[in-house]
Amino acid sequence: MNVLAIVAHPDDAAIFCGGTLAKHADRGDHVAVAHMTRGEYGGLGSDTEEDVAAVRTEESRAAGEVLGVDEVEFLGFKDGRIEYSLEDRFVLVDALRKHDPDIVLTHFQDDFHPDHQATARLVTDAYYMASLPLAETDYEPCDPDNIYYFGKPTSSFEPETFVDISGYLDTKIEALEQHESQVDFLVEHGGIDAEFDNLVDSLRAEGMTLGKRVGCKAAEGFAPLHEQAQGYLH
Amino acid sequence: MNVLAIVAHPDDAAIFCGGTLAKHADRGDHVAVAHMTRGEYGGLGSDTEEDVAAVRTEESRAAGEVLGVDEVEFLGFKDGRIEYSLEDRFVLVDALRKHDPDIVLTHFQDDFHPDHQATARLVTDAYYMASLPLAETDYEPCDPDNIYYFGKPTSSFEPETFVDISGYLDTKIEALEQHESQVDFLVEHGGIDAEFDNLVDSLRAEGMTLGKRVGCKAAEGFAPLHEQAQGYLH
Amino acid sequence: MNVLAIVAHPDDAAIFCGGTLAKHADRGDHVAVAHMTRGEYGGLGSDTEEDVAAVRTEESRAAGEVLGVDEVEFLGFKDGRIEYSLEDRFVLVDALRKHDPDIVLTHFQDDFHPDHQATARLVTDAYYMASLPLAETDYEPCDPDNIYYFGKPTSSFEPETFVDISGYLDTKIEALEQHESQVDFLVEHGGIDAEFDNLVDSLRAEGMTLGKRVGCKAAEGFAPLHEQAQGYLH
Amino acid sequence: MNVLAIVAHPDDAAIFCGGTLAKHADRGDHVAVAHMTRGEYGGLGSDTEEDVAAVRTEESRAAGEVLGVDEVEFLGFKDGRIEYSLEDRFVLVDALRKHDPDIVLTHFQDDFHPDHQATARLVTDAYYMASLPLAETDYEPCDPDNIYYFGKPTSSFEPETFVDISGYLDTKIEALEQHESQVDFLVEHGGIDAEFDNLVDSLRAEGMTLGKRVGCKAAEGFAPLHEQAQGYLH
Amino acid sequence: MNVLAIVAHPDDAAIFCGGTLAKHADRGDHVAVAHMTRGEYGGLGSDTEEDVAAVRTEESRAAGEVLGVDEVEFLGFKDGRIEYSLEDRFVLVDALRKHDPDIVLTHFQDDFHPDHQATARLVTDAYYMASLPLAETDYEPCDPDNIYYFGKPTSSFEPETFVDISGYLDTKIEALEQHESQVDFLVEHGGIDAEFDNLVDSLRAEGMTLGKRVGCKAAEGFAPLHEQAQGYLH
Amino acid sequence: MNVLAIVAHPDDAAIFCGGTLAKHADRGDHVAVAHMTRGEYGGLGSDTEEDVAAVRTEESRAAGEVLGVDEVEFLGFKDGRIEYSLEDRFVLVDALRKHDPDIVLTHFQDDFHPDHQATARLVTDAYYMASLPLAETDYEPCDPDNIYYFGKPTSSFEPETFVDISGYLDTKIEALEQHESQVDFLVEHGGIDAEFDNLVDSLRAEGMTLGKRVGCKAAEGFAPLHEQAQGYLH
Repeated sequence: MNVLAIVAHPDDAAIFCGGTLAKHADRGDHVAVAHMTRGEYGGLGSDTEEDVAAVRTEESRAAGEVLGVDEVEFLGFKDGRIEYSLEDRFVLVDALRKHDPDIVLTHFQDDFHPDHQATARLVTDAYYMASLPLAETDYEPCDPDNIYYFGKPTSSFEPETFVDISGYLDTKIEALEQHESQVDFLVEHGGIDAEFDNLVDSLRAEGMTLGKRVGCKAAEGFAPLHEQAQGYLH
Repeated sequence: MNVLAIVAHPDDAAIFCGGTLAKHADRGDHVAVAHMTRGEYGGLGSDTEEDVAAVRTEESRAAGEVLGVDEVEFLGFKDGRIEYSLEDRFVLVDALRKHDPDIVLTHFQDDFHPDHQATARLVTDAYYMASLPLAETDYEPCDPDNIYYFGKPTSSFEPETFVDISGYLDTKIEALEQHESQVDFLVEHGGIDAEFDNLVDSLRAEGMTLGKRVGCKAAEGFAPLHEQAQGYLH
Repeated sequence: MNVLAIVAHPDDAAIFCGGTLAKHADRGDHVAVAHMTRGEYGGLGSDTEEDVAAVRTEESRAAGEVLGVDEVEFLGFKDGRIEYSLEDRFVLVDALRKHDPDIVLTHFQDDFHPDHQATARLVTDAYYMASLPLAETDYEPCDPDNIYYFGKPTSSFEPETFVDISGYLDTKIEALEQHESQVDFLVEHGGIDAEFDNLVDSLRAEGMTLGKRVGCKAAEGFAPLHEQAQGYLH
Repeated sequence: MNVLAIVAHPDDAAIFCGGTLAKHADRGDHVAVAHMTRGEYGGLGSDTEEDVAAVRTEESRAAGEVLGVDEVEFLGFKDGRIEYSLEDRFVLVDALRKHDPDIVLTHFQDDFHPDHQATARLVTDAYYMASLPLAETDYEPCDPDNIYYFGKPTSSFEPETFVDISGYLDTKIEALEQHESQVDFLVEHGGIDAEFDNLVDSLRAEGMTLGKRVGCKAAEGFAPLHEQAQGYLH
Repeated sequence: MNVLAIVAHPDDAAIFCGGTLAKHADRGDHVAVAHMTRGEYGGLGSDTEEDVAAVRTEESRAAGEVLGVDEVEFLGFKDGRIEYSLEDRFVLVDALRKHDPDIVLTHFQDDFHPDHQATARLVTDAYYMASLPLAETDYEPCDPDNIYYFGKPTSSFEPETFVDISGYLDTKIEALEQHESQVDFLVEHGGIDAEFDNLVDSLRAEGMTLGKRVGCKAAEGFAPLHEQAQGYLH
Repeated sequence: MNVLAIVAHPDDAAIFCGGTLAKHADRGDHVAVAHMTRGEYGGLGSDTEEDVAAVRTEESRAAGEVLGVDEVEFLGFKDGRIEYSLEDRFVLVDALRKHDPDIVLTHFQDDFHPDHQATARLVTDAYYMASLPLAETDYEPCDPDNIYYFGKPTSSFEPETFVDISGYLDTKIEALEQHESQVDFLVEHGGIDAEFDNLVDSLRAEGMTLGKRVGCKAAEGFAPLHEQAQGYLH
């Protein structure tokens, strides 16, 4: 199976779906992570955007290695400045068609971060266009089965699909720890998003809290674009 | 696997979960249907409750046979008069323990019919008590995995789990047609619940409408008591 | 009364509000359908957009004739590429002012299709601007009473106003059947939107399911922009 | 048309649906108000329940006269002590059958007051049983079209049907003012329910606020048991 | 200030509001915990209800001491068998009047456990009756300001009021650990409620997860009966 | 404390948060109101946009004086034509940084008016960017604590934070009355938004209705961006 995660910033993959990606990779699925940006804004006042981007690109690759993903990609958008436009929707159509994924993971639209919102809309609208033969781009039409959205519990995001990541919580945390440039940044600028304080501890706590809700040690939650029938109740 | 459906009235099993029961039976699961009442109120003014009960008991057995269920049972409550009480909760504890089911199917609590409401509460509260060793009854404690509630779209019931019954819609309809005493009754008294007009046609339409929503020909929908984790996204 | 439906694609009018339009037309209301696009993307790989547009324009007129609508119009947007912009909002202000409708029917904003979303926003925002004398365009200001949104049950769309189309379900289906170019397209590309499989059967089923919910043979549902008082309870 | 309001306490009819009752009465509908209790608990420590009941019975009749209702009735329950039971459900079945109403108005179930809750459940469940020929009581079966629930905005009550009472707001307030025994009581014991402070002013404000929401001077809001289709959008 | 928590079972106080109780006690508020039952059903098959009750009574007192509460009380209901009745509502009226609390903490009604549900209803309905002078019981009427409900995230409970318990999370956990009889019970019978597995770890995780949501290290969440105005935004 | 309200049109500050601004100003907080536009479209056909803008600018200053605000500012957007764009987001970043507010008040996003929607998005997204050192603009980064959104009850806006404005309702109304140019405009064009009829009476009624809901004479309601912990329950 082909799994494609499209995330706004370098650390989003580990934070929102690292356990699930690691588990799918471990099963032998082909897993790719496409980063909209290199996280250029995630630096202190003394940094340049270029420096930050270079460091975070390496951190993304290191995290991807920890998770076992097969491809780590950057789509060239600028941190804090992803906008929704028809032109960029076509960029995402091509990103989808190039990977021809069975399922796509991305941000939930009602997320506070403007980049997450724009990514959610671009991916969702590209998904509808990717299969149309008359919408011509550089790659052949493709037709993924579903999108699974991830999000923060503080928005209106409400997960409906839960993946048991009991055996992959440590991997997720280890992937997160590759983003070490963010430690200093968050100490200084955590104020912008209080949710990043004590990131490692709180991600562990969230995984366990979600797991308890659905009857396992640790879980990640998603909202699917399409509801789907199952064969049996159990 | 042991499947137990607990329904208020004789035709509720076919209406709400007939396709799912038939499919589980077809897989080889042991399927039982426990009827709270014999539907004694489902008759015209010229009938007696006893006559109605006798006819509907036979119709229930015939419908059960069509669905392939292994056991058809009657718990002795009176149609239109199921009440919630601690004493009756213990009756349901024993009904559960006797069957020792893996999963239980029953009415969703927020249903307009008072019997459906009372059944939902009795089963749910019995479920919590059934595993307690110090809550002694005639049978050994048991510990079912989950309850799946079914309901009408006109209440606040919102299904989250959908079973593809594409191959079992005809069986469901055939089971429904065993309840032929209800045809005349509904012609006369459909006014009490306009939803039973044209029952066969509308159940087909509902199965298809739900199926279209989740990507198959026909479906039945349920709301589980416990959310559950899955192994992978797909 | 003046009724104006503004739809994204040629077959949307029949699918979402065909019964209601036919009924209003039958009462003697003046009914117009304005299509944002000619559905240029609704073709196979061997088609050109121009060919598809030409065929679907004719199908729209044929469907409009079946429904009894007085005007069928095309607003010149491109299928799959409707965007929200201030400039295009003024295009819709003029579309409204030209028709001076009492009520407007259009897509619900939270619809998966990007064209439906953009249409919903353009029409809604134009509605607020259409009555302002200082917002000058080619036509005089107008002030419609209300917008009625239609949508798919798979989005967050929740109808609150239901029109009994019992006598007009066949007309709706006949109008839908005028869009025969879409049959082949949907066989090939239904994957993009599984909801279009078996379109005729499922639209019949949906009309009946909605009708049963509100006490009639068949219904279409809408969400009004403004809630409104009524004279009496019955 | 036959309209029956079933309220828990003497002042509930004016507070929750006085404008609507007055308007229906003014149209020539037959309007009855059945009070579950005489409001025996609505007195100060120096009163007896009997005294309070006597005074409030007269106030109910005076208010009924102001509203133009045809019948004012008391069903014999005790204030603060209405309970839900099968036996009392049959009392309400008879109350319904005796009046044979087209529509019933009563409390919304999710109301903070235990008497309102119990009344809501008793009336709703009686409504389902009232049409059954085999559920024998002193009166003939009847089959009302719908129940309209009224409630307080502080509960989960959310009105969907709004009646324009622009010409009847003064009548509603005048009816309320007949319950003059409650003035002193509320000064002393308003603490139990802060919503009754400044009752007259706040009811005027609520009527206007609701009216503004739905485009008229003053309105009352209701949640119907059954959603219903309408003939046309406008 | 007088704080009264009314909980169904011995360990509910620590689990649901232990941090908040400890913090209020630490401020000098008078804090009382009234237990509906002694948790008689919380034992293994070889226990008697009396033995279990005796052990758990002591554990409750030990936990109360850790939390710093001033009074620990038992109201004499039986575990697993709390029912809603008018008679028992009056028992709770007296429990409230005896303590004359400013605020009351208790279970949220939509909780899966039947005892929690019944406690929620009894306390809420008693709250409405406790201030009425004509509702005579052994104590004088009282008029608490508000009820704060606590609940599990797996029900429809949605907290709106969050108390920062950063300095009291360890106290909460230590109080929980006094209920050591439940360790073996939960190992054997956790199946009835998977949420109690790894109770200590998961309560820590939940406190942190909730804290992160509202900008502090650890929090407990409540839903107030009455919404309340505040003086300023900050 | 620094309070900054960012409103789309001149009369929005008085309508939506006038009482709260007056109260904060009265406490000694520094209060500023930044108007996105001068309300150029709020005139009759015989006006020019420039005339309308000039009049309404003065009305805004007069209203600000009544409320006691320290600064009244205009951000240069055009009435009816506020659009969301990355460029304009940076304009708002600078508006925030220039004021360095502790809290920001602005429109709720799900408001019917397109200008309100665009303002909500621009302010919210600017808020996330304002603290980033690498997002360079003319002012130093700032980090406000929270945004409080205000809105109309007819949208999906649901207030969670209520400010008691009992002593400031008259001030709010007096501020509103400074916008006297709108009286004629609304008589002519109230049809576009029936909510502005009888503006003074209905704002009084709304303040009282909201106040009754939360236990005071009059209130204004807000939805905070971030939920926040409090120290104690009371």
